[in-house]
Amino acid sequence: MTTVLGQNQYGKAEVRLVRVVRDTPRHSIRDLNVSIALSGELEATHLTGSNAQVLPTDTAKNTVYAFARDRGVGEPEDFAIELAGHFVTSQPTIHRARVRVEEYLWDRIEVTGAAADAPAHSFVRSGTEVRTCEILFDGTAHQAVSGLKELTVLNSTGSEFHGFVEDRYTTLRPATDRILATRVDARWRHAWTGGDDRPDFAASYAAAQRHLLEAFATTHSLSLQQTLYAMGRSVIRNLPGVDEIRLSLPNKHHFLVDLEPFGLENPGEVFHAADRPYGLIEGTVLREGAAQLLPTD
Amino acid sequence: MTTVLGQNQYGKAEVRLVRVVRDTPRHSIRDLNVSIALSGELEATHLTGSNAQVLPTDTAKNTVYAFARDRGVGEPEDFAIELAGHFVTSQPTIHRARVRVEEYLWDRIEVTGAAADAPAHSFVRSGTEVRTCEILFDGTAHQAVSGLKELTVLNSTGSEFHGFVEDRYTTLRPATDRILATRVDARWRHAWTGGDDRPDFAASYAAAQRHLLEAFATTHSLSLQQTLYAMGRSVIRNLPGVDEIRLSLPNKHHFLVDLEPFGLENPGEVFHAADRPYGLIEGTVLREGAAQLLPTD
Amino acid sequence: MTTVLGQNQYGKAEVRLVRVVRDTPRHSIRDLNVSIALSGELEATHLTGSNAQVLPTDTAKNTVYAFARDRGVGEPEDFAIELAGHFVTSQPTIHRARVRVEEYLWDRIEVTGAAADAPAHSFVRSGTEVRTCEILFDGTAHQAVSGLKELTVLNSTGSEFHGFVEDRYTTLRPATDRILATRVDARWRHAWTGGDDRPDFAASYAAAQRHLLEAFATTHSLSLQQTLYAMGRSVIRNLPGVDEIRLSLPNKHHFLVDLEPFGLENPGEVFHAADRPYGLIEGTVLREGAAQLLPTD
Amino acid sequence: MTTVLGQNQYGKAEVRLVRVVRDTPRHSIRDLNVSIALSGELEATHLTGSNAQVLPTDTAKNTVYAFARDRGVGEPEDFAIELAGHFVTSQPTIHRARVRVEEYLWDRIEVTGAAADAPAHSFVRSGTEVRTCEILFDGTAHQAVSGLKELTVLNSTGSEFHGFVEDRYTTLRPATDRILATRVDARWRHAWTGGDDRPDFAASYAAAQRHLLEAFATTHSLSLQQTLYAMGRSVIRNLPGVDEIRLSLPNKHHFLVDLEPFGLENPGEVFHAADRPYGLIEGTVLREGAAQLLPTD
Repeated sequence: MTTVLGQNQYGKAEVRLVRVVRDTPRHSIRDLNVSIALSGELEATHLTGSNAQVLPTDTAKNTVYAFARDRGVGEPEDFAIELAGHFVTSQPTIHRARVRVEEYLWDRIEVTGAAADAPAHSFVRSGTEVRTCEILFDGTAHQAVSGLKELTVLNSTGSEFHGFVEDRYTTLRPATDRILATRVDARWRHAWTGGDDRPDFAASYAAAQRHLLEAFATTHSLSLQQTLYAMGRSVIRNLPGVDEIRLSLPNKHHFLVDLEPFGLENPGEVFHAADRPYGLIEGTVLREGAAQLLPTD
Repeated sequence: MTTVLGQNQYGKAEVRLVRVVRDTPRHSIRDLNVSIALSGELEATHLTGSNAQVLPTDTAKNTVYAFARDRGVGEPEDFAIELAGHFVTSQPTIHRARVRVEEYLWDRIEVTGAAADAPAHSFVRSGTEVRTCEILFDGTAHQAVSGLKELTVLNSTGSEFHGFVEDRYTTLRPATDRILATRVDARWRHAWTGGDDRPDFAASYAAAQRHLLEAFATTHSLSLQQTLYAMGRSVIRNLPGVDEIRLSLPNKHHFLVDLEPFGLENPGEVFHAADRPYGLIEGTVLREGAAQLLPTD
Repeated sequence: MTTVLGQNQYGKAEVRLVRVVRDTPRHSIRDLNVSIALSGELEATHLTGSNAQVLPTDTAKNTVYAFARDRGVGEPEDFAIELAGHFVTSQPTIHRARVRVEEYLWDRIEVTGAAADAPAHSFVRSGTEVRTCEILFDGTAHQAVSGLKELTVLNSTGSEFHGFVEDRYTTLRPATDRILATRVDARWRHAWTGGDDRPDFAASYAAAQRHLLEAFATTHSLSLQQTLYAMGRSVIRNLPGVDEIRLSLPNKHHFLVDLEPFGLENPGEVFHAADRPYGLIEGTVLREGAAQLLPTD
Repeated sequence: MTTVLGQNQYGKAEVRLVRVVRDTPRHSIRDLNVSIALSGELEATHLTGSNAQVLPTDTAKNTVYAFARDRGVGEPEDFAIELAGHFVTSQPTIHRARVRVEEYLWDRIEVTGAAADAPAHSFVRSGTEVRTCEILFDGTAHQAVSGLKELTVLNSTGSEFHGFVEDRYTTLRPATDRILATRVDARWRHAWTGGDDRPDFAASYAAAQRHLLEAFATTHSLSLQQTLYAMGRSVIRNLPGVDEIRLSLPNKHHFLVDLEPFGLENPGEVFHAADRPYGLIEGTVLREGAAQLLPTD
């Protein structure tokens, strides 16, 4: 009975890099988690254990650190494009590189009443939000995806859910005023696949993040699906360089606690924040005419 | 500027179900984490907030519990097939259901010297291994995938890595004797897509787990890729009903500690177990002629 | 052979409460995790299983929710004082109550250019920092402890470490410029034990947090111990109502990557952020004359 | 305003050590996580940044690895006693050392039908249980504590809870048949404080673990407190060298699902396994006449 090798890839995952820019006394930092996956002519190592086509994952790690020094980091997408390009063009047997980056965000620590230059090298982690990107490069074209995750948001009103299908297992009652809370996981694909018109990834990230938050805040919600679509649409409409966005939104249920046994009303004030189970709403929003390329899990 | 809804799905995730079978004084239990994802005619809820085609995720949760009582649980795959079938056939607007199950495993507590029937209802969680499955059903055919994760294994010798590509960023030295450790994440697809010849999922799980462990233990490894292929091949060869297996193997690095500064040799005895970064080796093994259907991340 | 019951306590842990204040269209929220531990006359339930002195943990949970509605939440310390007082005074067999609260912090979502009142009920989780408190009440006096955890900070320079003890196992080289990073876990004890001069816990929290951050940022550090002491001292000096502070500071090592093999210098720019092991520096700072009451692990 | 330094300690936490014993082709391994905390004459480093009394935490890490090679590991308690003794006796300014160890357990992989010596170096992580110990040494006497955590157990019947206190916030109904599940965290203190009669820690661990499991399984429970006491008592009674045991038992609630809306009875068969909140039952059991020395949180 014969077996065949299918798709395969390998690399170093979770290379934790902190890059300090100290050209002036006012430092800045970038705090990244970089994961490399390479594919190409890897049959031999699987079938015979010959590593003559295998660039060690340890080398991938070294390359991340060397590039961080030699060329600097800049935006995560730009750093990932450099890395992906290097692996594919320098190794003839590597035909595709995927580079994923998570970036952890920091604010400067503010010191009240102190000399203005005191905290020029002091930082505090800001927010739970993690910025993400993924670059795929096959030697010809890029697929450039930016994103964020762990962005937790809540509307304390302005959310309803009713008019749904009922079957013999339905016990849920219609709601005309509920808490809507989710932890946004979003990935948006840039139309750019190469060439000189590379996006300004810093600007597009800031814009996408702002539009996601604003759409969540300003949508009167009849379902989390409706909110998801409004969020995705707002990004597509406001970022001309983005063709597709995938959102994964857990419905973090907040259940109104029944206080009647204690002689108390509970007019939308006291909630139990549940862990599991949770609803999970996932959807893609596309610019008209654009292809759907992001995976849908 | 017009936007379009792409692929979307929704459901209840992580429904935690413990099912006690107490037909006799000697109980048994199944401990499951069930996640449902439904897709179909869901444009309205995204575009207008009309929920007339939406079966609430709360109902999906209720259905899991009701089915667990009414029909029992049995093997996770069989339970998932029942659930997926129910959603697609009972709701005309649901065209596809995906049911994922994690099962946590328990052993009976043994009581030494006690009356033999004492521990007939006492259990202890066994192993770190989690059994998994995923059933996709579109009203016509099933895709049935079984798997496991969090199975951590280690060979204290019998592993080499040398003969690899070197470039200007390579500093790794060849190894002729190293620790090989990984946390196995495996998913195998059954050839069965429906009909009466449904696999015996309990037997195939036990066999697949055993072949994965034995192949890991008995392969003298020249690369983790070689070990991966040997593990996958062993499952395909020994389980005639399985056509495809996807393995994701983090290389949990164990670095030999340099004890020379302390006047000590270290002949493969003292290791630092590192967290990050780690190598990540992923690959699919197919029965010859079979299609590759499992996602490759 | 006789055994004896020693110290014991019981209660409900991790009651997840979200309280919405909606007296006006501009809502506010408090997001708490409340844990109750009660002790007193509990011999019977341990020795015979008689629960005649046991208030169920389920009742403790209900009480949290009912109090949140009936009296409101306010500052976590004030809420905990109410709860602890209730259990000890309403149940003659409960002699001591300990209430711990974690608070997760939220900012309002800002909507640019929109009607000013739009986001009056929209929030985003702010920072990784978690506010904590612990109230102990024995029917007579309180011990009131406030704190924070998960506050991650980093100085990219201004840190040295040298002049240390060397023995035969020492290989560390002296550093005159290193990254200093930690995740602050701080608990400070208020002098107040009861009576009308209850502290303004909101103000003291804000002040303590600011002084911790500023002391971290403005201390040129010769050791993390020195920074710890400076942080604690700043809180004691600036908060007259605080007598004691305990700090636990993991030294989150950032190792300068050796880029020499690649022909590159690395003048304090490229670092590997390590997970484990980490240094762990713990210490208490006291107002002169104050007793040390906080546990030291 | 003057501040004073209170209790303080420092060291290296979470040194991950894997020790392979390869004296024969049949290897064995120990997989440890070691944390060192040292205290003594540390005023200077806190107050002035002088490190003249500070043995670097990096040296503590090196010492762990060097001792693992030089003297071997053996039982975690014995290894910790060696390490604690070294720090206190070799450094005049270190007056106390605390060494904590977690041990992760491994089984040999069994290979069916293969040559008997095949899997002599292949292992699989066994169980979720983590073995723990803590040694305190002040230059004169030891406090030796052994323990375990993450041992998850469940009784599917044989548990009741009724006859409890009711107040205005009580809604819980009495239960005469419920699931009792917990994740055992236990720490037991040996009477031994030094000298030649050092316990056989391997044997006492095996015995304590067995007695905890058997007491859980064979106690018909009227409250989790009663089960806790029975578990502690069984260890004290059966291990003459153990004087004190502290147990922390989360009550992992399994709620019977109400299936009446679906026309189904649920006679103790279908349960929702809840995450939070959970009951938390903590208690110490002492040999009569023994002092209570373990911390009670």
